Amino acid sequence: MYIDVFATAGGADPGLLAGKTVLIIDVLRATSTITTALANGAAGVLPVLTIAEAREAAAGLTPGTFLLGGERKALKIPGFDLDNSPRQYTREVVAGKTIIMTTTNGTVAIKQAFPAAALLIASFLNARAAAREAWKTGTDIYLLCAGTRNRFSLDDAACAGLLVHCLQELEPGARLGDLAFALRHLYLSYRDDLPHLISHASHYQRLMDLGLEADIAYCLQQDVYDVVPRWDKERNLIVLPLD
Amino acid sequence: MYIDVFATAGGADPGLLAGKTVLIIDVLRATSTITTALANGAAGVLPVLTIAEAREAAAGLTPGTFLLGGERKALKIPGFDLDNSPRQYTREVVAGKTIIMTTTNGTVAIKQAFPAAALLIASFLNARAAAREAWKTGTDIYLLCAGTRNRFSLDDAACAGLLVHCLQELEPGARLGDLAFALRHLYLSYRDDLPHLISHASHYQRLMDLGLEADIAYCLQQDVYDVVPRWDKERNLIVLPLD
Repeated sequence: MYIDVFATAGGADPGLLAGKTVLIIDVLRATSTITTALANGAAGVLPVLTIAEAREAAAGLTPGTFLLGGERKALKIPGFDLDNSPRQYTREVVAGKTIIMTTTNGTVAIKQAFPAAALLIASFLNARAAAREAWKTGTDIYLLCAGTRNRFSLDDAACAGLLVHCLQELEPGARLGDLAFALRHLYLSYRDDLPHLISHASHYQRLMDLGLEADIAYCLQQDVYDVVPRWDKERNLIVLPLD
Repeated sequence: MYIDVFATAGGADPGLLAGKTVLIIDVLRATSTITTALANGAAGVLPVLTIAEAREAAAGLTPGTFLLGGERKALKIPGFDLDNSPRQYTREVVAGKTIIMTTTNGTVAIKQAFPAAALLIASFLNARAAAREAWKTGTDIYLLCAGTRNRFSLDDAACAGLLVHCLQELEPGARLGDLAFALRHLYLSYRDDLPHLISHASHYQRLMDLGLEADIAYCLQQDVYDVVPRWDKERNLIVLPLD
């Protein structure tokens, strides 16, 4: 088993992802939000790239069965129901609903990984479960970080390092790519003080400036959920598998 | 002053590099070789992307004044004078000669950085001098790692981390991008045992398989040279500035 990491959505070669298991990571905040929404009973998450595409998808669904969610520049999109704060995706709000979602980095990374054999959603919130689910596939595993504006982002990098660490516990003989090795080391160095590490992320400052420190604290919680959202190719929907 | 790192040549946005100071890093082996060649009295290094381009450039020069150097798949190119081993670029061989050079990753990274205001060549061999020269420009600084087959490479990453560390000693108030922060940490964690870190690089195994351990040991020596090769835009040649 080979394990490696792409630091940005744009840095990933979709051809290389074909037939592999891909874990998408966008800690602040898309994959934390998707994990939360599905853990709280959302029927599914439909990832779309553009606001126009989101509205088009909404037009094809029965009113009352869906919610529009996501962000541009970390802010709610005009006319949408929800922004990209995982704390908005409570059971009361999302249970039974399909979430049509577009975000700046996260949904781009998800789309990039469509050629994968298994496309799973990972975050600190469900890290251990996500690693186990990926490991069970038996294929090589790529961790695809969304990054921020197509740059390496410390929050995603730390989460990728945690996932590599979990995967190597499950499969001690796994070969690690160079970035997987480096990020596992980064995570293990800072595991007891993740907020300190994340405070050096440029993305962190943007969210702090917007008063979103509670979102950050929420997203850095580890293994709160045991669910692993998975993209269902036929339905083009991220769901929780029934098994 | 802002300092950040691109992990691969392909990951760098040439537009972002415009007007900045860029340090090119390809430890194993292009920038180690260029540094060695110029330290040993080569007249200049002409970076070209393709073998055909190299032969075309050679045709325009007086026989005896130049050498063809570089590699494909880490091996000497048929008909070339030198491969990409820095230990071949001795004073006896290169003094006074122009080196026409094409490598798989390094010369690609150099070409990517042509829009930079100052394009400097860095390696472990000249790290401290390169950091000081970059710092003296006063602009933002990007470290552009060549990477290996467009992937993050631990050898370049460790050297980038050393350069960030040197730059931050010179400019304690410098802001670090996310990857600069992570790689400085990586370097500082392994500074006393770099060979151990580099032994985890996938590129390392390739060079070991080819019997090039002496090249690796050579390239990991720190601050052997005080010279900083710089791309001279008007002459399209990497040279040592006269001042």
